[in-house]
Amino acid sequence: MTRVLLTGFAPFEGESLNPSWQAVRAAAAEPPAGIEASAIELPCVYGASIAVLRAAIEEVRPEIVVCVGQAGGRPDITVERLAVNVDDARIPDASGAEPIDEAIVPGGPAAYFSTLPIKACVAAVRAAGLPASVSNTAGTFVCNHVFYGLAHLIATELPGVRGGFVHVPYTPEQVVDRSQPSLPSEAVTRALHEIALTSARTRTDIRVAGGATH
Amino acid sequence: MTRVLLTGFAPFEGESLNPSWQAVRAAAAEPPAGIEASAIELPCVYGASIAVLRAAIEEVRPEIVVCVGQAGGRPDITVERLAVNVDDARIPDASGAEPIDEAIVPGGPAAYFSTLPIKACVAAVRAAGLPASVSNTAGTFVCNHVFYGLAHLIATELPGVRGGFVHVPYTPEQVVDRSQPSLPSEAVTRALHEIALTSARTRTDIRVAGGATH
Amino acid sequence: MTRVLLTGFAPFEGESLNPSWQAVRAAAAEPPAGIEASAIELPCVYGASIAVLRAAIEEVRPEIVVCVGQAGGRPDITVERLAVNVDDARIPDASGAEPIDEAIVPGGPAAYFSTLPIKACVAAVRAAGLPASVSNTAGTFVCNHVFYGLAHLIATELPGVRGGFVHVPYTPEQVVDRSQPSLPSEAVTRALHEIALTSARTRTDIRVAGGATH
Amino acid sequence: MTRVLLTGFAPFEGESLNPSWQAVRAAAAEPPAGIEASAIELPCVYGASIAVLRAAIEEVRPEIVVCVGQAGGRPDITVERLAVNVDDARIPDASGAEPIDEAIVPGGPAAYFSTLPIKACVAAVRAAGLPASVSNTAGTFVCNHVFYGLAHLIATELPGVRGGFVHVPYTPEQVVDRSQPSLPSEAVTRALHEIALTSARTRTDIRVAGGATH
Repeated sequence: MTRVLLTGFAPFEGESLNPSWQAVRAAAAEPPAGIEASAIELPCVYGASIAVLRAAIEEVRPEIVVCVGQAGGRPDITVERLAVNVDDARIPDASGAEPIDEAIVPGGPAAYFSTLPIKACVAAVRAAGLPASVSNTAGTFVCNHVFYGLAHLIATELPGVRGGFVHVPYTPEQVVDRSQPSLPSEAVTRALHEIALTSARTRTDIRVAGGATH
Repeated sequence: MTRVLLTGFAPFEGESLNPSWQAVRAAAAEPPAGIEASAIELPCVYGASIAVLRAAIEEVRPEIVVCVGQAGGRPDITVERLAVNVDDARIPDASGAEPIDEAIVPGGPAAYFSTLPIKACVAAVRAAGLPASVSNTAGTFVCNHVFYGLAHLIATELPGVRGGFVHVPYTPEQVVDRSQPSLPSEAVTRALHEIALTSARTRTDIRVAGGATH
Repeated sequence: MTRVLLTGFAPFEGESLNPSWQAVRAAAAEPPAGIEASAIELPCVYGASIAVLRAAIEEVRPEIVVCVGQAGGRPDITVERLAVNVDDARIPDASGAEPIDEAIVPGGPAAYFSTLPIKACVAAVRAAGLPASVSNTAGTFVCNHVFYGLAHLIATELPGVRGGFVHVPYTPEQVVDRSQPSLPSEAVTRALHEIALTSARTRTDIRVAGGATH
Repeated sequence: MTRVLLTGFAPFEGESLNPSWQAVRAAAAEPPAGIEASAIELPCVYGASIAVLRAAIEEVRPEIVVCVGQAGGRPDITVERLAVNVDDARIPDASGAEPIDEAIVPGGPAAYFSTLPIKACVAAVRAAGLPASVSNTAGTFVCNHVFYGLAHLIATELPGVRGGFVHVPYTPEQVVDRSQPSLPSEAVTRALHEIALTSARTRTDIRVAGGATH
């Protein structure tokens, strides 16, 4: 058994749901064989989100942490490569905070790579018939904030843990009148199962191209 | 009971499946209460597609005809407003034909409006939690060709029949590595049920805005 | 000399300028050799726009009419193929009118084809180093309204006149902070010169593919 | 006088020109007052591109280095925030190399921030009437490779130099038949002048939001 902690976010920017939490809750409720899954919902708030994540990690003691967030407008499941040490967003977080170009961890490295096998995760999701790709930016809002916080925690205090971030599209319900790409929650749940299983099984990532020219 | 004929297309442009036929077949196999559904697959060929459609209409004697095709790249179910009297495509059809600016029916009107209640259909699909919108162009390839052929048949020979065209997105399986929008076949099947039911029940379309500035 | 009437629109939807009028005014101020050009600005209002167009045509007595409008979000110069007999938009016009699914000309045909050589115009703009394509929908707002009004006037009263519609992108000034495609006004002006010249010279359109699969 | 080194790239991926080199050459040929500009063309080759850049820096001894590359598909001038320590692309470079997930500098930090005032540069380009934004990923191809190489050189050997990377759209000539966004070379040249001037004048970046939710 591999202990996996999955995190999703509370809704933000006027949405009534957040597809990340929907899928995370469902994925943890019926985990695949060999996975012992826990799910927590993080507030869409700088600072507090990392505090809640840290508390959950201390309680659950996971071997793998997969944080999940909504990337409205992206058509596929995107496995993030890099967390960057900056908060800077075009909208306020759920507490009203609007930091500009502030370090998440003052003095911390500019960025951390995901410690999940991102290429293997993408390949597994695709093999399950769902669209996926590597993303080279998780943005500079609370998703990236949590991702950087997790990576810093792993790098400085939890060497045995591996973790990363996955962005998921809108659900169809969110965009019935918006002409935006979407994937049903069931599909995202299946993708998270593939990512959890693949992360549990894969120590060294596979070598397949997954980059971008820009 | 309302007799509804659903049509989908065979795959084209190198795809191994066509989501329109997948969804049409499934929608006809388990139709909603009150609908007697038939499904046929049309060849992706100018001319022959209309001939096969005409033969199916003569056999099935439907009250409503909903032709369905793939619109790769669109994120939602699009109910087409207008069929235009021209064949002109950037790719050959499945028989290799590449007509340029040729009339589908020489001497026919420049265009026909759909005789389905397109706004009511869009509203019904949205109410079912799926993304939908009106489209003002079905292109100038075989989808539009069949749509125009159907509309001309209705206008000139089958005044009691109503019919139109619906474009559907890629399925996730088609775009696992392409970063294109998609909807699972089950979702499209549900949307087709809503469109069949709504078309059966609605004689006069509802008045809600559904246009585009360009 | 060929007499060409160019029309642009007043700004709408909160914009401070309309790139169509900017380019039309400049194109008429220094027309290419062989072209005698007039420019008028049409109000972005259903009904009134056609009335102003009709008055200008009666005064100028053009051989060719090229109406131009803004298509925010499109990256290239698009030469419209088809005007459709319906008003239906997601936003009100400049007078506050919001018609839904109303015929522009009650009893008029569903659509008219452009009587400009659209493929030759696209080819000429491309040969001048600027991006262009055929569009199969001019929308269902005031642009399409004017296009249909012009086409109906030509079909019913002015058989010697040829005319059509061209959509142009935002200018860079309009989208400095919006990550939307744009083309400078000078480039659009050059494109309009090519379209005027090509329309004056070309009676029978060239045969090159320019359609869309959907 | 501030000495500024501008670099552009040779064409790649079958293009006959690279808009970055066009604009860089023009920008250096007639620099704005107060700027002494040099321009070099870098090969689109991992490794060699950094070697050519280093040699040019040693020769020119610039105070500011602005590397420029093509970002086909982006509609605006994008000032890059972050260089990442990885080579991983979907296409081979001009020498045929296709590294996968290889460190640019083994043992180097995961990423470097640009040392240009990126927010001030974006603001200056916008004030000049041209579209611009901050980008949070320069990709993982040769553009990012050069950007990381430059940042590493500055961090480890050239503390007095400041430098960064700017991505520019296609030019209209490149996309006449592709329906992709573009900006004329003259516009990009003006943007590069603004970026050079702003970088020369601005030691501490301005505080304005410029991030992304994902």
